[in-house]
Amino acid sequence: MIKAGIIGSTGYAGAEIARLLTGHRDVEIKWLVSRSYAGMDYADVFGNMFELIDKECADISLEEMAGGVDVIFTATPQGYLQTTLTKDCLEKCRIIDLSADYRIKDVGIYEKWYGIKHESPDLLQEAVYGLTEVNRDKIKNTRLLANPGCYTTCSILTAYPLMKEHMIEKNSLVINAMSGVSGAGRGGKVANLFCEVNESAKAYGVTTHRHTPEIEEQLGYAFGEDLMVQFTPHLVPMHRGILATEVARPSGTYTYDEIKAAYDKYYGSEHFIRVLKKDRCPETRFVEGSNYMDVNFKIDDRTGNLILMGALDNLEKGAASQAVQNFNVMFGFDEKEGIDMIPQMP
Amino acid sequence: MIKAGIIGSTGYAGAEIARLLTGHRDVEIKWLVSRSYAGMDYADVFGNMFELIDKECADISLEEMAGGVDVIFTATPQGYLQTTLTKDCLEKCRIIDLSADYRIKDVGIYEKWYGIKHESPDLLQEAVYGLTEVNRDKIKNTRLLANPGCYTTCSILTAYPLMKEHMIEKNSLVINAMSGVSGAGRGGKVANLFCEVNESAKAYGVTTHRHTPEIEEQLGYAFGEDLMVQFTPHLVPMHRGILATEVARPSGTYTYDEIKAAYDKYYGSEHFIRVLKKDRCPETRFVEGSNYMDVNFKIDDRTGNLILMGALDNLEKGAASQAVQNFNVMFGFDEKEGIDMIPQMP
Amino acid sequence: MIKAGIIGSTGYAGAEIARLLTGHRDVEIKWLVSRSYAGMDYADVFGNMFELIDKECADISLEEMAGGVDVIFTATPQGYLQTTLTKDCLEKCRIIDLSADYRIKDVGIYEKWYGIKHESPDLLQEAVYGLTEVNRDKIKNTRLLANPGCYTTCSILTAYPLMKEHMIEKNSLVINAMSGVSGAGRGGKVANLFCEVNESAKAYGVTTHRHTPEIEEQLGYAFGEDLMVQFTPHLVPMHRGILATEVARPSGTYTYDEIKAAYDKYYGSEHFIRVLKKDRCPETRFVEGSNYMDVNFKIDDRTGNLILMGALDNLEKGAASQAVQNFNVMFGFDEKEGIDMIPQMP
Amino acid sequence: MIKAGIIGSTGYAGAEIARLLTGHRDVEIKWLVSRSYAGMDYADVFGNMFELIDKECADISLEEMAGGVDVIFTATPQGYLQTTLTKDCLEKCRIIDLSADYRIKDVGIYEKWYGIKHESPDLLQEAVYGLTEVNRDKIKNTRLLANPGCYTTCSILTAYPLMKEHMIEKNSLVINAMSGVSGAGRGGKVANLFCEVNESAKAYGVTTHRHTPEIEEQLGYAFGEDLMVQFTPHLVPMHRGILATEVARPSGTYTYDEIKAAYDKYYGSEHFIRVLKKDRCPETRFVEGSNYMDVNFKIDDRTGNLILMGALDNLEKGAASQAVQNFNVMFGFDEKEGIDMIPQMP
Repeated sequence: MIKAGIIGSTGYAGAEIARLLTGHRDVEIKWLVSRSYAGMDYADVFGNMFELIDKECADISLEEMAGGVDVIFTATPQGYLQTTLTKDCLEKCRIIDLSADYRIKDVGIYEKWYGIKHESPDLLQEAVYGLTEVNRDKIKNTRLLANPGCYTTCSILTAYPLMKEHMIEKNSLVINAMSGVSGAGRGGKVANLFCEVNESAKAYGVTTHRHTPEIEEQLGYAFGEDLMVQFTPHLVPMHRGILATEVARPSGTYTYDEIKAAYDKYYGSEHFIRVLKKDRCPETRFVEGSNYMDVNFKIDDRTGNLILMGALDNLEKGAASQAVQNFNVMFGFDEKEGIDMIPQMP
Repeated sequence: MIKAGIIGSTGYAGAEIARLLTGHRDVEIKWLVSRSYAGMDYADVFGNMFELIDKECADISLEEMAGGVDVIFTATPQGYLQTTLTKDCLEKCRIIDLSADYRIKDVGIYEKWYGIKHESPDLLQEAVYGLTEVNRDKIKNTRLLANPGCYTTCSILTAYPLMKEHMIEKNSLVINAMSGVSGAGRGGKVANLFCEVNESAKAYGVTTHRHTPEIEEQLGYAFGEDLMVQFTPHLVPMHRGILATEVARPSGTYTYDEIKAAYDKYYGSEHFIRVLKKDRCPETRFVEGSNYMDVNFKIDDRTGNLILMGALDNLEKGAASQAVQNFNVMFGFDEKEGIDMIPQMP
Repeated sequence: MIKAGIIGSTGYAGAEIARLLTGHRDVEIKWLVSRSYAGMDYADVFGNMFELIDKECADISLEEMAGGVDVIFTATPQGYLQTTLTKDCLEKCRIIDLSADYRIKDVGIYEKWYGIKHESPDLLQEAVYGLTEVNRDKIKNTRLLANPGCYTTCSILTAYPLMKEHMIEKNSLVINAMSGVSGAGRGGKVANLFCEVNESAKAYGVTTHRHTPEIEEQLGYAFGEDLMVQFTPHLVPMHRGILATEVARPSGTYTYDEIKAAYDKYYGSEHFIRVLKKDRCPETRFVEGSNYMDVNFKIDDRTGNLILMGALDNLEKGAASQAVQNFNVMFGFDEKEGIDMIPQMP
Repeated sequence: MIKAGIIGSTGYAGAEIARLLTGHRDVEIKWLVSRSYAGMDYADVFGNMFELIDKECADISLEEMAGGVDVIFTATPQGYLQTTLTKDCLEKCRIIDLSADYRIKDVGIYEKWYGIKHESPDLLQEAVYGLTEVNRDKIKNTRLLANPGCYTTCSILTAYPLMKEHMIEKNSLVINAMSGVSGAGRGGKVANLFCEVNESAKAYGVTTHRHTPEIEEQLGYAFGEDLMVQFTPHLVPMHRGILATEVARPSGTYTYDEIKAAYDKYYGSEHFIRVLKKDRCPETRFVEGSNYMDVNFKIDDRTGNLILMGALDNLEKGAASQAVQNFNVMFGFDEKEGIDMIPQMP
């Protein structure tokens, strides 16, 4: 039985990890850390867990917890972990971090986009970027897993096979993505009230969204060269889901079968990535509540462009269930254990 | 491995049964029957099942199917099963019916409220009403299970312990209930379009809703006498969920502890019915996607009334997961097998 | 040109008053008061008003403003006005208050339900309760208008004619009402985040909601005796709208025509209250964005009960547009000026 | 008093025209045509119009109606008008058509994208494309007004000034747009049920959406040369609203002020098009229920691209209120008459 702690357990991603681990056969949750709700019954905060989790929210430090658990999930604001984590902690337990603190290898880029200084750049090289299907082997042995962002997981996996195969022009990718509101977190902000976001759509973070350098770094690794993308995120009125629509200039003239073959090469044997039938467009409802990601593409014969599309659940494959997927890989469990939910519709 | 067929597998309740059985260890789905989509890949209708169900929608009769399966779930319009089912079928396989055809023992009441003639009243007496927690013992051996309606499950279980204990006045119950839109079915009706039901609330079926006699019959059994309720259903803009608010005149002056004790007597050891802490009101989001039902009550010292509240997911405890719960009881499996989902929030 | 000020202009009700007055021919808005947004362009807070209101949010006291305007609308938290308002202010300008501070004549009841002391009980008797269709004559000359609550307007007007005519038993009224989320205000509370209230329904304030004594006082006036109601509010996932479903015991046996006649007697010549055709149930979408209220009723021949139903837009007839309607009466304008919007669907 | 008829008056766009004309001072609605609801009271179909429209839905032909009215609005399926309209009709009354039948000058392109033969190509040249702010002068005198599509109005107006000024590269425009569900019409289709579209987002009509050639033709006129765009529409769960996000390659290096000046040149004196303040992104909620369109742009210094953004209400500026705006221009009324609604939020 693996002993786990969750820091940031009353945010949406942290709570989803708590829910998933409650259903995981090989895990015992030891600590549910939440500064804001410390002392409260966890099930009074998340009523869905009534009679399922019988534990109080704790306010215990990473360091204190490290000695008593095998793994700590940190679903914390940017900056928390990189100012807290030490080598000593890492010798005691493994860390799966859902923040951006160890995702970007180039500390200068991190500091520029996030506007904060990185306090533990020495640990950066050790961190493994947890895009499970891409980095599975490296994930097995890492002590410090940087779980990818929601937009990034979706944006990268949608284009990954074609980038790997050099089938699209380097800097041509225009990514438009839309996210459900849970991606904006569980803070009590006017901007995320029901009456502010329901029945409305908007772009935000235009040219400045922090998932941009993360997407560029990873797609750059796939392509083999540094590259740039034009990434524009949008907020739409739904709980969960990310949909990415990507327009790319192909590097040559490819048939449907050739592009399909590229997707199948990388995803054909992946349980959690589904390449849809010809002409089917991914819809977020068909992956909601699951670790699945759906992808597909279309060739525009008129313009010559490729349109690539991907959908996932931002709280699952975009956060919590991918974190548990990585946990399974790290600890040698069946990769599907605890996260093999079938998407719920409606 | 139990072999199962589902008739009406492309409606919301039928599809939910298909989804649940796909995750059930001891079941193999043999037939997914859908007249409207016959010949189509099931996963082309329900994209969430892509790569999870690899089967075409079939158009095969109950009779033909009966010989090849152990159990048939019928999620069909009222009138279908009672005009189709024969004793011969029942000797070949067991039936779990999600329609109202065998729920009401008094055939006259059925014919009056549903406006259709009952063609197999002889089978009515054999049918067991599948409110699992109430009729568990009878369910074990039945061949014909009448799965309760969504409003009825919620309305009955909210008041059941107090009715059983004669703690409320016989005809005093005023039930106001609201349902998510999936309860209205998957037919292509203008009335259920997004733009017709979103951002609106209404009462409907006032004084005439067909779940009324079903509630009255079952609460009458609990109370030990025939009784009447004032039941008013409402439609509210959400996918799933039923919330019942019931105002009752108590038969005496009871303390909180006395009423709580009545609820605990019937539900204290039930896994799927949760009696909430004092002063917590059930919310549909906390049971969504699960077989749980949450109940609670409040005493109004000013008016002397009791306010009883219950919440469930209309497609789960109100339809599909209760059907699978009954299936588990009927076939001797762990009652939780395949339906032990933890409610998903948000 | 009437000069107006709005205190609390960045809450939902206050903002709606600002929007309505912007379209009113005889009003000039002088002050938009908002402590939280003081100094910001109003149109930066409410982007819908861009190029339509060119004014900064001000932080000016009621007293200071009183000398420079003809009317002040206060859309402020409970307790603000009763601790601020003076006779001196009232001699300078008229007040239309959307809080509960002057709604309840019995100061003891106010203090009990609101849990705060009333600091200007002497002004209470002067205040007129602004249910326009009921108190039109008194409204004309008042200096202090207590604008009714949203639940109260809907709950009262739904039953008013039958109470007036003594057609229902005194204490028999069971009111279940549901509200859109804008009724919960624009504060940055976790409880009102999109991901907390969307796709869910719940009862709240059960037996304790503060609109209860307001409903009881006004229906008591109509009935001619003190009375009690059983009022239970619910939150449902929509922006706007209140729906009240009221079950009543009739005082005798009445035909449809008799009850219809009672409604027509009071509402037949009212522009903004629509008594629907037989068997039509009010739906909030059909009054959304307007000052209309729709009502209807149904007789249950089986149980003998009456089911009364009413729908309005909580931000309009339940708050802002009724405030402007009262303003029109007070200042001698056409009652429909500025508020004759046709409900928008969808 | 202008006499008007509406064909297709029970679809969402047709109903919105009926609602707007009901509030227009200079119009009397003579006919509300609806084949599906012929003989029913209009207010029984659209309950919001109860006591506001007292008319039955009629089933009368265009030809019959033409002699008795001054203007006919056709909110009909593609193909209806071009197979029905005659010169004779046009001599009797003016037509404002909300379908695509007379929008595209090149009959070959119409026939290719719509897959139907055009039966009155001779009338095509006479038709004026009703983008009011662009074609105001031509609109004044036309007898046949082709009202633009919803996506098209939004997509074109977002880029129009920069196209006119040759500030973007000809074929570089990548348009991603998302629409509320009312854009999909009021037919009873499973695909538009609440439970199918709520809580989900998807791209659709990828590379094949019929608004593509309309956008290309009009932007080509602005640019002075034929051009192509990459247009991808999306469906998101809201009633109303279109948001367009357009990525363009600039034809040179432009400063914020230079681009702003181009927008101001064309829109600075337009009442209904609002160029937002620097860094504000258009949101559909801020134009909902109004004829306003909000636009803005952002320069990406890293990639060199321009990101252009526009928002409108698909049923208003994208359909009905623009039709009435054109009507006002055609008949010499104040352009704002009947359509000067202030956007409603929330």
